Amino acid sequence: MNKIYLDNNATTKVDEEVFKVMEDYFKEEYGNPSSTYDFGKRVKDSIEKARDNVAKFFNTTPDRIIFTSCGSESNVTAIMSAVNKYPDKRHIITTKVEHASIMETMRFLEKKGYRVTYVGVDSLGRINMDELKESIDDDTLLISVMCANNEIGNIYPIKEIAKIAHDNNILMHTDAVQAAGKIKIDVKDLDVDFLSISGHKINAPKGIGVLYVKDDNNYSPYIFGHQENNRRGGTENSAYIVGLGKAVELILNDNYSKEKELEELRNYMEEEIKKNIEDIKIYGDLDNRTPNTSSVAFGGVKGDELMVLLESFNVYVSTGSACNSTISLPSYVLTACKADVNNYSPIRISLGKYTTKEEIDEFIKILINAVGMLRRRG
Amino acid sequence: MNKIYLDNNATTKVDEEVFKVMEDYFKEEYGNPSSTYDFGKRVKDSIEKARDNVAKFFNTTPDRIIFTSCGSESNVTAIMSAVNKYPDKRHIITTKVEHASIMETMRFLEKKGYRVTYVGVDSLGRINMDELKESIDDDTLLISVMCANNEIGNIYPIKEIAKIAHDNNILMHTDAVQAAGKIKIDVKDLDVDFLSISGHKINAPKGIGVLYVKDDNNYSPYIFGHQENNRRGGTENSAYIVGLGKAVELILNDNYSKEKELEELRNYMEEEIKKNIEDIKIYGDLDNRTPNTSSVAFGGVKGDELMVLLESFNVYVSTGSACNSTISLPSYVLTACKADVNNYSPIRISLGKYTTKEEIDEFIKILINAVGMLRRRG
Repeated sequence: MNKIYLDNNATTKVDEEVFKVMEDYFKEEYGNPSSTYDFGKRVKDSIEKARDNVAKFFNTTPDRIIFTSCGSESNVTAIMSAVNKYPDKRHIITTKVEHASIMETMRFLEKKGYRVTYVGVDSLGRINMDELKESIDDDTLLISVMCANNEIGNIYPIKEIAKIAHDNNILMHTDAVQAAGKIKIDVKDLDVDFLSISGHKINAPKGIGVLYVKDDNNYSPYIFGHQENNRRGGTENSAYIVGLGKAVELILNDNYSKEKELEELRNYMEEEIKKNIEDIKIYGDLDNRTPNTSSVAFGGVKGDELMVLLESFNVYVSTGSACNSTISLPSYVLTACKADVNNYSPIRISLGKYTTKEEIDEFIKILINAVGMLRRRG
Repeated sequence: MNKIYLDNNATTKVDEEVFKVMEDYFKEEYGNPSSTYDFGKRVKDSIEKARDNVAKFFNTTPDRIIFTSCGSESNVTAIMSAVNKYPDKRHIITTKVEHASIMETMRFLEKKGYRVTYVGVDSLGRINMDELKESIDDDTLLISVMCANNEIGNIYPIKEIAKIAHDNNILMHTDAVQAAGKIKIDVKDLDVDFLSISGHKINAPKGIGVLYVKDDNNYSPYIFGHQENNRRGGTENSAYIVGLGKAVELILNDNYSKEKELEELRNYMEEEIKKNIEDIKIYGDLDNRTPNTSSVAFGGVKGDELMVLLESFNVYVSTGSACNSTISLPSYVLTACKADVNNYSPIRISLGKYTTKEEIDEFIKILINAVGMLRRRG
């Protein structure tokens, strides 16, 4: 039986077209993009073409795009840039539902004497905007809020939060790793100072990220060196950069139509689950989620047990962020939502560009069977 | 005419076997290594196998190996770890001939109030050991010296410097990016606290590095997150990690015999140059260089003009570090050597595993012709 992969928020398969454009940069076009001879300059030109694509993807200019090694590097670079920009300020605002790379950076800064406010969410996972506004003080240097949540898919009001930040002379960062490719990202409209994305969530490989920087005056390099116009050292990962350029081009050419299909498929899946399985709960802000994500719990069934049982049927889902999956704790996102995770511990089902209706139909059958097995066992 | 690529210190071609092992991690084994199901665990297992290989390559245990995105990241992470380890100390010792990623990190720290001593070198590029020893004071927290120089190939006495460092309760880092694969690296023998390497100098791709850490008590994460045993965040670049594991395995299996061949070929090349071209100068510590590197100047001929002319014959050499090549300055390494770069500005010829005797013979012919052309032009 073929694998049914429904964990695309954890990572995605590299698109065949992305692989094809990368191949040449391993085999033939292996020159160092910093070398001044043509064999290096050709690679540099390809990197700049990829940068143009990413700029279009964000509705900005190529000079605002810095290639990094991952979303986590983009996140920490943005946060440390803000910290360096305001050496006399000591307060940062973020939320209780951010990615581990944000949380761990905040903990590092707390040890260095920074105050961090972790704004809470309501039962639907929506950010408590009053709490966010009230936590601002003269010492606040940065607000960092994710664009879309990895576990429940909620899309957050980044444009609104950026306005609040700027009205108070505060820098604004958004971790858009889980939003990229799923919803349109227009940095001019959002008006954020920093925005992070990661390649491997959009069918490019693991090991490439982007940091959008609105104004270099707010930016400090984090990995030092002359590459990326003195903004990020390290010989450029030419193959992955070119691959990422192709990945965003595919999304742009498709004009997000695949995502509309995915949303219909996800909604169909949820309807079928509701029709066929009693006592379920879907987490998150249902009308304001990324189109591919569903966090579903089955009364009395433990999410991690269901995940393991589904795996035995060659179906791959998760119980939360892979980046925290080695930690045996209830999801902090759902804890923040004050969810009844003892009785309703969810699995996260995240569709991807290769997910088909046939797979979803097959998955529903397997799921009905699996939930039944676990409930009978009690 | 086929390209003759003699700039392997800038970057190398990905080995065909390395490419083959990576391919699967783009196409089939694309699971997230942090995922707990088998489709993720298999990838994790492959990463750990690569880590075993790298540990063997360094003569250490796998738990001492952290995968990073590049040599530059490894370098800055090591330096910042030392800075975090000794928050009350403010002095660092390095040399005038380090890589840009070290130099730029030092400049960042100087802006933060740190004192940095840049130890000089003699006319052969050898480190002034007396100056190094004399610069040590109670405030010194780190000595960072490269294992081998990228431009002239000099191999530095890291074991001796590490002993000096430890005798004075100072941490020791070495940037071994240009040494890896060219000379044996035994971290137990060198007794360094941190050591950096980069994949793309040893026929793995651009975008993968390693940091060896002797003792986690001296280490602070720089890109925060749960991966790499909480030591380096970001979803693992599984393809490149597996590729790097293969690249070091190939070197180990070969027992550096290719490097012995390269040394003979390099020496043959230098002899042929001496025999056929008058008034030349070879820079560096000739009896103590990496086996593949030759920095040769031709009296009255400008290195950059020669480089460009050679390119027109499809021969690729450089005039120094690619990481500085966008900066139109004389090489700071040769400046540190007080070299007469006005009359003897060199080209750097760096051989690689694919360099053949036929290519070197062809190159010598082209070089004789090119130097003649430039000298006649005057």
